[in-house]
Amino acid sequence: MSITYTNLDQCSAFEELKGLSPAVLRTELTAERAASYTIGTAGDLSFNYAAAPVQERHLEVLQRLSQQQQVIEKYQELLDGQIMNPGESRMVLHHLTRGKLGADVIVEDEDKERFYASQLRRIELFTKQIHCGEITGSTGKAFDTVVQIGIGGSDLGPRALYLALQGICRASEDGQLMGAEFISNVDPDDAAAVMRRVDPETTLFILVSKSGTTQETLTNRDLVIKRMKDSGIKGLDPARHMAAVTSMTSPLASSSEYLESFYIDDFIGGRYSSTSAVGALVLSLAYGPQVFRALLAGAHAADKAALEPDIRHNAALLDALIGIYLRNVLDRRTTAVLPYSQALSRFPAHLQQLDMESNGKRVNRFGQEISYSTGYTILGEPGTNGQHSFYQHLHQGTDVTPLQFIGFSHCQYGEDMEIDRSSSQEKLNANLAAQIIAFAKGQDHENPNKQFPGERYSTLLHGRQLTPYSLGALLAHFENKVMFQGFLWNVNSFDQEGVQLGKLLANKILTGKVDDEALAVYVDLLR
Amino acid sequence: MSITYTNLDQCSAFEELKGLSPAVLRTELTAERAASYTIGTAGDLSFNYAAAPVQERHLEVLQRLSQQQQVIEKYQELLDGQIMNPGESRMVLHHLTRGKLGADVIVEDEDKERFYASQLRRIELFTKQIHCGEITGSTGKAFDTVVQIGIGGSDLGPRALYLALQGICRASEDGQLMGAEFISNVDPDDAAAVMRRVDPETTLFILVSKSGTTQETLTNRDLVIKRMKDSGIKGLDPARHMAAVTSMTSPLASSSEYLESFYIDDFIGGRYSSTSAVGALVLSLAYGPQVFRALLAGAHAADKAALEPDIRHNAALLDALIGIYLRNVLDRRTTAVLPYSQALSRFPAHLQQLDMESNGKRVNRFGQEISYSTGYTILGEPGTNGQHSFYQHLHQGTDVTPLQFIGFSHCQYGEDMEIDRSSSQEKLNANLAAQIIAFAKGQDHENPNKQFPGERYSTLLHGRQLTPYSLGALLAHFENKVMFQGFLWNVNSFDQEGVQLGKLLANKILTGKVDDEALAVYVDLLR
Repeated sequence: MSITYTNLDQCSAFEELKGLSPAVLRTELTAERAASYTIGTAGDLSFNYAAAPVQERHLEVLQRLSQQQQVIEKYQELLDGQIMNPGESRMVLHHLTRGKLGADVIVEDEDKERFYASQLRRIELFTKQIHCGEITGSTGKAFDTVVQIGIGGSDLGPRALYLALQGICRASEDGQLMGAEFISNVDPDDAAAVMRRVDPETTLFILVSKSGTTQETLTNRDLVIKRMKDSGIKGLDPARHMAAVTSMTSPLASSSEYLESFYIDDFIGGRYSSTSAVGALVLSLAYGPQVFRALLAGAHAADKAALEPDIRHNAALLDALIGIYLRNVLDRRTTAVLPYSQALSRFPAHLQQLDMESNGKRVNRFGQEISYSTGYTILGEPGTNGQHSFYQHLHQGTDVTPLQFIGFSHCQYGEDMEIDRSSSQEKLNANLAAQIIAFAKGQDHENPNKQFPGERYSTLLHGRQLTPYSLGALLAHFENKVMFQGFLWNVNSFDQEGVQLGKLLANKILTGKVDDEALAVYVDLLR
Repeated sequence: MSITYTNLDQCSAFEELKGLSPAVLRTELTAERAASYTIGTAGDLSFNYAAAPVQERHLEVLQRLSQQQQVIEKYQELLDGQIMNPGESRMVLHHLTRGKLGADVIVEDEDKERFYASQLRRIELFTKQIHCGEITGSTGKAFDTVVQIGIGGSDLGPRALYLALQGICRASEDGQLMGAEFISNVDPDDAAAVMRRVDPETTLFILVSKSGTTQETLTNRDLVIKRMKDSGIKGLDPARHMAAVTSMTSPLASSSEYLESFYIDDFIGGRYSSTSAVGALVLSLAYGPQVFRALLAGAHAADKAALEPDIRHNAALLDALIGIYLRNVLDRRTTAVLPYSQALSRFPAHLQQLDMESNGKRVNRFGQEISYSTGYTILGEPGTNGQHSFYQHLHQGTDVTPLQFIGFSHCQYGEDMEIDRSSSQEKLNANLAAQIIAFAKGQDHENPNKQFPGERYSTLLHGRQLTPYSLGALLAHFENKVMFQGFLWNVNSFDQEGVQLGKLLANKILTGKVDDEALAVYVDLLR
């Protein structure tokens, strides 16, 4: 089948979709619907969309839209190694870091699947050498802490996953093997705070920068090295406390200033790099290689599930399509991601990058301006915390914000107890279920201030427990959802030209070449 | 002068405002404008609005709007103890926790200023007893850690301020006196994780709940007590490790199960409570009473500055008014708060509650439905981190999101160095200045993918350094901005009826009284 790339507003199914009014949840959200509008997916996860405003007729049109935009075929092209990032003429291979679902991808005589697998094996070997004390710090002490120095995709995804795995790993027999910290911001206070928390003798630093030229990361490396040198600890050699994750052509590759370098390549975008060496090294050091392997297996299972053409059986695809209806027909601009799981406290911040950097675009994949809305604004905090914060606005504000709930039957630590005849986990999930219905159905009241309009849409991803495997599936669900939305909007979800102008102007300031007088004033104000 | 409460769309100045098209920043944002569109305010802070799309004619209309809505007069009424939370028939007295700017406020023969001041003195005495070891844990060890158990306003504000002060206090002579942790979520993994980090023998827990009935907080108290009892430490007595911050009529008041109780009252809303005992106890324990006093002084100075009727000299008021123009004339729905300061990493999460819970309302202060948009959706992460995350969407997405930048000339720890001829702080602020101009002026390019449309509005709050005093001023700036917007929209910014329905339904679940069949299905799904 030949693949064509068409703007959303050229699809007849989109025209049909625009004619469909939303389901009325107050009357339509029945027990039967709540039970049947659900799709099982990888890692024990289910996607329940009963509280989204779609009916059978919407699903039929969305199925046609998916076919007209050939989203499954485009996904297969991506898996087969076609150039799916046309702006940068690159393949998009992050799926391959967790398993193969397409043709052999060979670049300059190298099989990319083997390349990623070999880096993972190198990381596992290195990790074992660290864990068993074969490699120690320069003063002979075993490493007990790892500090990842990176920003953007080298920070947000790995950090969110690190926090998400901590409870489940600590509660397991193996426990947590090393503590992890992260330095990202060029604000010197970020590195200063972390350096006060760690012992340089027992700390391994990981520099993560694909290009090897990221200003924040190189600056923080130098701050860390200076702090180590200033520590006065005899024999402390920074070079023996650093490893790098970078591309083979970067200045960080194979340097004598690092213990070891591990490689990624141009086909793994930053925000999609958590399952590559970028996430592998820090997570394997913290929790052991088998934990990271389980995460990869969960992500791979979700990638496989996302190949299903029937949208009623493809959670990531239906999630994406419902998002198009809400965005482009009902004019919703923001999605709140609301995990009822403290472990996912920074997962919304990762999704913020994943979604907003991928699909916050105003040109299509050919670089032509488009005339419809694209990517959502993403925000979110864990429940029940959010209930005591911004839910007022979500329930009774003048905007309607679609909600993406996430929940699990079991907690991670297993340290729970019954208080007033229910456990904390039961209270947590009672709140989650209650919120879905409260948002959907609202409440009539003679006092308008106590009235809830309802018809505030949500979906729910839920599973038994947040484990490495289900976390991998959850991560891939959102990566694939974002990818599908990119196909539907006909944008390139894999470049990020919008970050360049700020960099350019900042460099002009730092090299004394400011050519805008207003800019010069701002520079002075902040001096 | 008599005060009248009028809907925004009843003001003639609002009609005028709707007729004004925005300034064109690409041509109008000159050096002169950058230097002159600025207001100095308390705590060494300045509010620069040169990159907001307003001209002199906008300012004139906004001044009239401010007068027509009598916002300064309403603020004075609030300070004088009038019932400014009509839904709950309550006064709004958080300003009084930092100083008096109005009439004596007497409730049941008690002067409220004295009441708040006396609670602060009790906290300071208690704090000194803890710090000098006069009060120790039940096994005789000195307290070195404080854990605040609270949710919403009892968590977000105090936590954001705790993080914001850490660097500056650690870098000072006095240093940090006690470590602090926070437990908020009813997810049992939240308490489990914190309890693994602290030593129960040397930890003081603060229960914070105005009503003394907050489900999450009471549940977490009981989890903590159980964990202490299960610790097997001989002589460990939870009652001697707990203090409470609550109202005098709450079940937590004067209990023998706590070392001490400190009091707030119904006139301090949760999201406005950081400068009351809710923030005072934890922050005084962590950093010393004089640090908290400095924060109060900064907030008081900003409260005073906010009484200025001339909008060209009132930063909080002009910030509020510009927000009305963007929201109600230009249809912007979201504001991104972007502090170029790692210390403010959780400040946007606090503002999210402050703004969205205060003004996310669809009825006016009389409980009548209104027909215009109110409160913004708030999101934000520190720069430069955000640049590598969601700025793509802000620069090149199809929505325009107003931006609220915050920056400081100096870092907190003072541990900085020159790398490539600039310090980290200089790099940080070069990025901040560059982003303001990049968003405002954009960039033409023959390749539409490299084109930046510009006209993406921002304002900048900046100061010399983030200190306790300037942090207090910053906090009060936003509190007062939100209050002014509430007056302009004619909503009650001090109630939160929107949180009730979810609570009600959750309680039905937990007491086995579910009367909605779809809800029962969701409860089962999550079991």
